[in-house]
Amino acid sequence: MHVPRQFIETNATILHDLIKAHPLGTWITSYNDNIEINHIPFLLEVDGNGLATLKGHINRTNPLLKSLNALANSVVVFQGAESYISPSWYASKPIDQKVVPTWNYAVVHAHGEAQLHSEKEWLLSHLNSLTDSQENRRTQPWRVSDAPDDYIARMLRGIVGIEIPIEKLEGTWKTSQNKSNDDKLGVIRGLDLDHDRDSNEMSSYVREHANDN
Amino acid sequence: MHVPRQFIETNATILHDLIKAHPLGTWITSYNDNIEINHIPFLLEVDGNGLATLKGHINRTNPLLKSLNALANSVVVFQGAESYISPSWYASKPIDQKVVPTWNYAVVHAHGEAQLHSEKEWLLSHLNSLTDSQENRRTQPWRVSDAPDDYIARMLRGIVGIEIPIEKLEGTWKTSQNKSNDDKLGVIRGLDLDHDRDSNEMSSYVREHANDN
Repeated sequence: MHVPRQFIETNATILHDLIKAHPLGTWITSYNDNIEINHIPFLLEVDGNGLATLKGHINRTNPLLKSLNALANSVVVFQGAESYISPSWYASKPIDQKVVPTWNYAVVHAHGEAQLHSEKEWLLSHLNSLTDSQENRRTQPWRVSDAPDDYIARMLRGIVGIEIPIEKLEGTWKTSQNKSNDDKLGVIRGLDLDHDRDSNEMSSYVREHANDN
Repeated sequence: MHVPRQFIETNATILHDLIKAHPLGTWITSYNDNIEINHIPFLLEVDGNGLATLKGHINRTNPLLKSLNALANSVVVFQGAESYISPSWYASKPIDQKVVPTWNYAVVHAHGEAQLHSEKEWLLSHLNSLTDSQENRRTQPWRVSDAPDDYIARMLRGIVGIEIPIEKLEGTWKTSQNKSNDDKLGVIRGLDLDHDRDSNEMSSYVREHANDN
């Protein structure tokens, strides 16, 4: 990932929060330059020492399981909000018209070596945690234990657990940090009026940097 | 990408529409198993024979330009709406509780060999088209010609154009097609009540398949 220095985000809490908010990862592996891409939700677990691990699962029939060398070379991309930024939003536009469009986005790349798990206990514990991470915000959360035991046992036999201890975590927050404060306020105003699917979230990213200059 | 047959979408118009609606691509290249990932907006152009091409641009300082072998092995991922699907939404849940959570999503993978362009005419034409594709929906669209000529000429010298004739286009629409019609209606209701950033779009995907069973 090629990113000008001002767009690099290194704060681990901010990177972890994006993964939690956008857990559907684009899991990329490559072996002999054969690129494999799978889309699966990951749960991020951070231990007391700050070591972060991604946990997920795939179907036992996934051909990726035949390519164990590929698993060693894994990158998972988590994509946060992204929005087109119109030059007409910049406060500086009327001055000399020296403005061009850009695209703002926030992404996290997590690099590591994927390990497999077939132990029933690991899988059940993982499914409980992943489910609870999504259901806990609901008024009546569904629990894995709501389903019949033999039904869940059959499900467990059909999947393989994935554990990726994160060796390198990269964050790109391309959120108008290279602009003046007045231009940032113009971007926030433009995004707020836009009501794109992501514009509110992107507006909040830009707002966080609005006093940097 | 490992996808059960029922989730494979082959309709080119549907795949193209997702790219147009979500043009920020995750561009993946691999050479000697070194995975490079760049996030850039692409414009899709389809000629009279139905041949589709992705066009974008990157900064001339991007180290990807030093790895021409990697460019030959390009995949661009375009991600549409994605949503957690709670088992509590399924109409069939009360019958025997044999339900589990899943994640719905729609993605397109475009494979091809990336070619580079440094010709001023190509770049200017590309920037005009890319800009217009985003600005045309605005009341007062900004145009590249609104900026001073010498300013744009300087910008053009800083970028390199990317052209990827699409050799293989894969679509995955994991949108509850494996569920009964009543379960699909439950998912649509759940998504509509959810107001996640993507739930309305995902609800419309599921609705399109609601009468398949």
